[in-house]
Amino acid sequence: MPEGTQRIALGVSYNGQRYNGWQSQPSGHTVQDHLEAALGRFATQAVATLCAGRTDAGVHGLMQVVHFDTPLHRTPFSWVRGTNTFLPPDIAVQWAQPVPDAFHARACATARRYAYVLLQSPVRPSVESGRVGWVFHPLDGDAMRAAAQHLLGEHDFTSFRASACQAKTPIKTLHRIDITRRGEDAHCYWRFEFEGNAFLHHMVRNIMGCLIAVGQGHKPAGWMADVLAARSRDAAAPTFAPDGLYFLGPVYDPVWGLPARTAAYDWLP
Amino acid sequence: MPEGTQRIALGVSYNGQRYNGWQSQPSGHTVQDHLEAALGRFATQAVATLCAGRTDAGVHGLMQVVHFDTPLHRTPFSWVRGTNTFLPPDIAVQWAQPVPDAFHARACATARRYAYVLLQSPVRPSVESGRVGWVFHPLDGDAMRAAAQHLLGEHDFTSFRASACQAKTPIKTLHRIDITRRGEDAHCYWRFEFEGNAFLHHMVRNIMGCLIAVGQGHKPAGWMADVLAARSRDAAAPTFAPDGLYFLGPVYDPVWGLPARTAAYDWLP
Repeated sequence: MPEGTQRIALGVSYNGQRYNGWQSQPSGHTVQDHLEAALGRFATQAVATLCAGRTDAGVHGLMQVVHFDTPLHRTPFSWVRGTNTFLPPDIAVQWAQPVPDAFHARACATARRYAYVLLQSPVRPSVESGRVGWVFHPLDGDAMRAAAQHLLGEHDFTSFRASACQAKTPIKTLHRIDITRRGEDAHCYWRFEFEGNAFLHHMVRNIMGCLIAVGQGHKPAGWMADVLAARSRDAAAPTFAPDGLYFLGPVYDPVWGLPARTAAYDWLP
Repeated sequence: MPEGTQRIALGVSYNGQRYNGWQSQPSGHTVQDHLEAALGRFATQAVATLCAGRTDAGVHGLMQVVHFDTPLHRTPFSWVRGTNTFLPPDIAVQWAQPVPDAFHARACATARRYAYVLLQSPVRPSVESGRVGWVFHPLDGDAMRAAAQHLLGEHDFTSFRASACQAKTPIKTLHRIDITRRGEDAHCYWRFEFEGNAFLHHMVRNIMGCLIAVGQGHKPAGWMADVLAARSRDAAAPTFAPDGLYFLGPVYDPVWGLPARTAAYDWLP
């Protein structure tokens, strides 16, 4: 890095409903485009960011982490307040922190966490439109939990990988899938939480499609092992809607000293 | 009612962010306008509705109740499904039920419940933009609870009444104000739940302004009694933002046999 340049990490939250995903596009209407435009206005010079985990159109970010290099010296909270002044109301920087040059938002993430929130009701979402997925028929939680067990550990996740995926390898490690619900059978919210070292493009949404197929009784729990073993996208269920998907954020070694908070969001939506 | 005409009650949920409130307007962009347009398309004739409690622009409804009279005979769930087909994604009918001619959505409501959800954080809302109020500085829950006590029971609520209020009397009874929070001081959500026999225009938002003034230490808890006794809008704090306000719904005598569910929403946003 040039002399006098500082690397800054930011935590960023956003509602993905109105955006064409994270990654910058010529349209200019992505979360990264808005963030870099706001940083650029505050810094009065171009700022290029790199994120921990890109999100698709319609997917939300609770604590995305990015880093960038800048010759500008400002207090951490002035980066937060200054950038937020120029961001739309559904995107906000949560914290800013100087980091060593060796920190890299994507490469240093040891794990990533996602949540999928699903409304189970005879009636489609309304108040929570665009922020939850939806199933009409009641789901069997125990069957879904049994199916999810087959995915834990290190596997070739080719069956859950979008054709456009740019990852170097389909081999990833899933540490945890927690499935909980709140409410009555006639109207409840399911929350699926995923933690893994990394995720392929559409991986969570493809797993969701399969979990729901099991939860609705269309497939037995053991079918999930067959899908995984097939290493073919054709074996899995269709990609589920982006609406209920939240990138909870990356996990870093505590040595970097970055804020770990996403807990206040544990009860979303 | 004309022979063969049936009275139907509906439960309706909506995200108020995009709408000019409940009450029909020439602009046509209110929740009532959209609901009546959708009912009219399903019924292929004009349908006029009457609601339990009007909501302002930006205020959400979790279980608004309306009634209307129709010569059309349809099963309850076909009213739900048919109307939802023609409603925008952020409004949905939750249930429909035939009711006796004596039922009246507003006049028969014995109580009404509201919730106000407030984000306490150094950073403004983002993911939850338009669906929560916001305070920068930490609030003192015990002080707010002590202040709220002064409002319980039957009082003249003139101090908390908007000048445009059309209620016949400013005398209302507040049964309950529950104040709870989730999360850490640095980032948490407060939930204020109100139940009363009826509410004046802006009453909850005006009470919220005063509770926050107490919670931030600008006023002592006992000041709330002074505001109430003053019977003057000038005595109270400014009207708080509509963003975090949810009409949870009316309460009816069980004799009407209407669904009572709003419980699944108890952990919103």
